Amino acid sequence: MAKLTSRSEDYSKWYNELVVKADLAENSGVRGCMVIKPYGYAIWEKMRDEMDRKFKETGHVNAYFPLFVPKSLFEAEEKNAEGFAKECAVVTHYRLKTDPNNPSKLIVDPDAKLEEELIVRPTSEAIIWNTYKNWIQSYRDLPILINQWANVVRWEMRTRLFLRTAEFLWQEGHTAHATKEEAIEEAEKMNNVYADFAENFMAMPVIKGLKTPSERFAGADETYCIEALMQDGKALQAGTSHFLGQNFAKAFDVKFTNKEGKIEHAWATSWGTSTRLMGALIMTHSDDFGLVLPPTLAPIQVVIVPIFKGEEQLEQISEVALEIQAKLRAKGISVKFDNDTQNKPGWKFAEYELKGVPVRIAMGPRDLENRSVEIARRDNLTKEVRSIDGLDSYIEELLKTIQKDIYDKAFEFRNGNITKVDTYEEFKKVLEEKGGFIYAHWDGTAEEEEQIKDETKATIRCIPLDDDVEEGVSLISGKPSKRRVLFAKAY
Amino acid sequence: MAKLTSRSEDYSKWYNELVVKADLAENSGVRGCMVIKPYGYAIWEKMRDEMDRKFKETGHVNAYFPLFVPKSLFEAEEKNAEGFAKECAVVTHYRLKTDPNNPSKLIVDPDAKLEEELIVRPTSEAIIWNTYKNWIQSYRDLPILINQWANVVRWEMRTRLFLRTAEFLWQEGHTAHATKEEAIEEAEKMNNVYADFAENFMAMPVIKGLKTPSERFAGADETYCIEALMQDGKALQAGTSHFLGQNFAKAFDVKFTNKEGKIEHAWATSWGTSTRLMGALIMTHSDDFGLVLPPTLAPIQVVIVPIFKGEEQLEQISEVALEIQAKLRAKGISVKFDNDTQNKPGWKFAEYELKGVPVRIAMGPRDLENRSVEIARRDNLTKEVRSIDGLDSYIEELLKTIQKDIYDKAFEFRNGNITKVDTYEEFKKVLEEKGGFIYAHWDGTAEEEEQIKDETKATIRCIPLDDDVEEGVSLISGKPSKRRVLFAKAY
Repeated sequence: MAKLTSRSEDYSKWYNELVVKADLAENSGVRGCMVIKPYGYAIWEKMRDEMDRKFKETGHVNAYFPLFVPKSLFEAEEKNAEGFAKECAVVTHYRLKTDPNNPSKLIVDPDAKLEEELIVRPTSEAIIWNTYKNWIQSYRDLPILINQWANVVRWEMRTRLFLRTAEFLWQEGHTAHATKEEAIEEAEKMNNVYADFAENFMAMPVIKGLKTPSERFAGADETYCIEALMQDGKALQAGTSHFLGQNFAKAFDVKFTNKEGKIEHAWATSWGTSTRLMGALIMTHSDDFGLVLPPTLAPIQVVIVPIFKGEEQLEQISEVALEIQAKLRAKGISVKFDNDTQNKPGWKFAEYELKGVPVRIAMGPRDLENRSVEIARRDNLTKEVRSIDGLDSYIEELLKTIQKDIYDKAFEFRNGNITKVDTYEEFKKVLEEKGGFIYAHWDGTAEEEEQIKDETKATIRCIPLDDDVEEGVSLISGKPSKRRVLFAKAY
Repeated sequence: MAKLTSRSEDYSKWYNELVVKADLAENSGVRGCMVIKPYGYAIWEKMRDEMDRKFKETGHVNAYFPLFVPKSLFEAEEKNAEGFAKECAVVTHYRLKTDPNNPSKLIVDPDAKLEEELIVRPTSEAIIWNTYKNWIQSYRDLPILINQWANVVRWEMRTRLFLRTAEFLWQEGHTAHATKEEAIEEAEKMNNVYADFAENFMAMPVIKGLKTPSERFAGADETYCIEALMQDGKALQAGTSHFLGQNFAKAFDVKFTNKEGKIEHAWATSWGTSTRLMGALIMTHSDDFGLVLPPTLAPIQVVIVPIFKGEEQLEQISEVALEIQAKLRAKGISVKFDNDTQNKPGWKFAEYELKGVPVRIAMGPRDLENRSVEIARRDNLTKEVRSIDGLDSYIEELLKTIQKDIYDKAFEFRNGNITKVDTYEEFKKVLEEKGGFIYAHWDGTAEEEEQIKDETKATIRCIPLDDDVEEGVSLISGKPSKRRVLFAKAY
């Protein structure tokens, strides 16, 4: 197995190699679309199941809406349409026929042209609000708290596995409310659910904030987000939650009778996370040897590797290994006993390091004599020898420790890479030399934001929600600023 | 709430009304595409989770492949392409732009035409085998046992909710094997998994069989299937499992080195079930009052309805009802206590009957005095009064009884509607007057099969696998037949 390019040598190359070599995903025969391989999909399934649990816990239900959006619905909410028109796949025909010039080929049948073009959903506000129109008459029909797990398509020109693909998997929540306050509360709540998921399940620290008007979702009045910091000092938007005001209700004429008997438009939110989180996971924790996975997301949490010469030794080790496996499984830990005889232990060690299995247990003939095993942690690459007695409880605790340590390490890295700067010179210097989040003053205008983006490629990731407000003067215009905002180059 | 059209009056209308009124699904603003509403989706989720568990138990893993199939890949396996070309959605452009004649409208940007058209997957053999090509070099890479949960599109002209929609949700297994025998074994195994799921989870009896050549999946060498019988005497194909031979391996040049060092093409299977099963579920069990759900698939298994006058009575009843609810939940039973004060008990009774909640518990002031409740079964509409003591264990057993009784009822109906006939006259008479499965002799030719279909609309649903073989002479040609096959009109 050839080694990975190191992160320090070429971070981007390291990422691309890791995604492919760890069997997470690969490019497909379709431009910009990926194949999510079984090992990668198993991790995504764990993310999905945990988020789904959290959504249901907070009162949401799942449903499914059509893949296609007729053009007339797509264009109804103007800002939203404008935001997505440049990158959408369009279905124009519904049939192929045999090529009269070459019977083994097919061509689009010109007689099967659709009366109205269908857009492959880049997001589902339009199709969903067109449906909600029939579901909402009275305040009694509200709130509607629906989530959808689906695929969406955004025609990206430069794609990268998980981070930016033409098709990706995601969840999109779409809620309708009787009051503005309730909708805002929902948008905030779901952003908090995302933050909780990112930190406590993905072991990935995030900063919660609001997007500036120019970075908002097309059609939103306010966009909440969680921003994570990758190891190369670039930020990654890990989830967004939008307060949509009455924009979609007005575009699709969704009105209801409120408690006072007056007719008004419904208030909306939408919120989403996607397979992009797989990219965030990789770039938060992994190292030059391969994936590092928090135990919560590891398809295999513990691997047992026997070290043996000949059948007899393998049999003796197997007996004990299978006992250990059974005890760990009884504690709900996923274990693989790798008794394959084709590959050497060294090869297996490297393979499970690459795949990010959190704990490796190695057992040889001498361990058998001593009733001991060698335990190796994937996250910090430390090893220790432990007795087989009480191993199951020890491993159970160890997995919790690893989960915490992985988070702490990422948290420390993130915090060490937030730099407060007060001048534009300093801003550019830090961005160039160190990267990371830069915490600086901004005058609140789209002009200054745009100039900084053009000159440095850094964008305002968010206006943080949780920090102390501190006044100052903005980087370029020198105008007074009420608070610092968070800049970074971003994925 | 207006009553449903009765089944005897108009079965088709009954079905359509029930799907909408029970909040399972509705037609969307997109031709032929449905919205699966939260209650319907909750049932589908239960189907999906159980099937997913069974697939994993039998060694399969999930993955995800692209939504789009480039035309050149789509047409590679000729029979498969021919089978689906007439009903596929085609993406030809990747961008919209503002209509120069009307700035509030969008038009397809003629400058954004794709070099190669993309087909929205009607099934994924092509895209998947194009991927497997890179995964398979040696017999050591086999078998590949992958399943995918996805949406697919088949441009149907006449659509019906769940039964036939342009877009539907499904799972598609795609496996690759080193030998023909192993692939056939896999195709049979998955057909058995489907049968087990249908009978033991959906409480829907099925007949396992093989399709005739003209009813096979386009590109298959053999199609296994499970066939169910609906209440109106029409059959419904509930799942299919295909032995694909080397057809796709040859079309996509997927070769491997076998154990003997020789190079050969891989052997394939694919197998699928879809949201069509929702239609099968409805038409197997439900009645004129609404849905009847087996407890395994009921989003709410038990509903508790308080019967009260005034706040005080409600409070007294609530106290006991919440205790019952807690005890039932502790047994893993999903319970809803409906303490809504807007709707009367009678309305609630009708609503939960419509929604198919298997057990209803009603509690009034007199029940409170007697420490009793009224228990109503949805499946057979019987009622009884029981003591509150030991109620949780009683309900737990009752749910099992209901599951069994629902299956038995459907089994009896199905068996009572299989008619053996020996002449074509009798065949037509039974088909007209009774419907159901007709068990008759066929000469094995496509001609006779076609003639029967043209003249009666009945098709050969399958050549059953599990029955005793009995020789005879065929219906029309009078040629010798080695075994009876199963005919029916079908959904």
